[in-house]
Amino acid sequence: MKRIAIDMDEVISQFSTKCIQLFNNEFNINYSVNDLHGKKLVELDKRFERKVNEYLSLESFFLSLEVVKDSQQVIKKLSSQYEIFIVTAAMDFPSSLAPKYKWLKKNYDFLNEKNFVFCGDKSIIRADYLIDDTPENLETFKGKGILFTAPHNMQETRYFRLNNWYEIEKYFNNK
Amino acid sequence: MKRIAIDMDEVISQFSTKCIQLFNNEFNINYSVNDLHGKKLVELDKRFERKVNEYLSLESFFLSLEVVKDSQQVIKKLSSQYEIFIVTAAMDFPSSLAPKYKWLKKNYDFLNEKNFVFCGDKSIIRADYLIDDTPENLETFKGKGILFTAPHNMQETRYFRLNNWYEIEKYFNNK
Repeated sequence: MKRIAIDMDEVISQFSTKCIQLFNNEFNINYSVNDLHGKKLVELDKRFERKVNEYLSLESFFLSLEVVKDSQQVIKKLSSQYEIFIVTAAMDFPSSLAPKYKWLKKNYDFLNEKNFVFCGDKSIIRADYLIDDTPENLETFKGKGILFTAPHNMQETRYFRLNNWYEIEKYFNNK
Repeated sequence: MKRIAIDMDEVISQFSTKCIQLFNNEFNINYSVNDLHGKKLVELDKRFERKVNEYLSLESFFLSLEVVKDSQQVIKKLSSQYEIFIVTAAMDFPSSLAPKYKWLKKNYDFLNEKNFVFCGDKSIIRADYLIDDTPENLETFKGKGILFTAPHNMQETRYFRLNNWYEIEKYFNNK
């Protein structure tokens, strides 16, 4: 059985959307995720640097993240033909460890927790595929890297790109 | 640079020693780690099943674990010639996630937290070497597996074995 490693923030959980929502509420601004085209949050507004640290330190932040559209159904289908691992960078924000675990158990209850990986440097991951929105993680990956479209990576051209979970389903169906 | 993945419990932290200590105090018994020869804790005394769950749910349990003899000095030396990753199974006890992180930062402050991996199934790990006391983790590992001697694995004969950190140092010095 081949193995697919799947990133969490921006790929199955709507991380930036939540940051922007909290930021807009706090500063009475009206940023949208589309304003991130080719940019990270901190490039959109440098106040995000301090604010993201603050948001992430709250347990409630991760628990309240929305699921990315179609990810649950597609991953459920894929899990009958592939080994699925959720691989998330969590070591920069150790306070995110427990809430990330709870979020995964709540929203992906069909996955075994033995297949959750909380790490930093993703070059440690051995899998056939890695679906990730961060180009740096694909750089060091030894299998087939798939760049999952997120507003911040729109200008990245080095990697094979899929735009949403519908396209991922189609890609693996044609294998 | 080649990469060494190193397990945590029993390899760099004295997990069973602490469990036995707490158990002895509680039941006024006098078990020693040597009583585990070829056995897991629960095979020594079935009350460990419930008790280990209880001990592990306390943040103070992990924080109070002693470091395995010579592991700090040897890993520090090895880290100049090898990439070191600490790879620990933490998903069965999610309450251990934060305390394990704190213990590593306290006792291995010379390692970058980007090289900590908290996982379940260790077949996800890509490294050249894995030093682990659990035979099941070596079974699925694709690099060179090294069984680190612990009382419970004394009867295991399938894997290349090193008995302590002094032997590990010698082994890598001769490479």
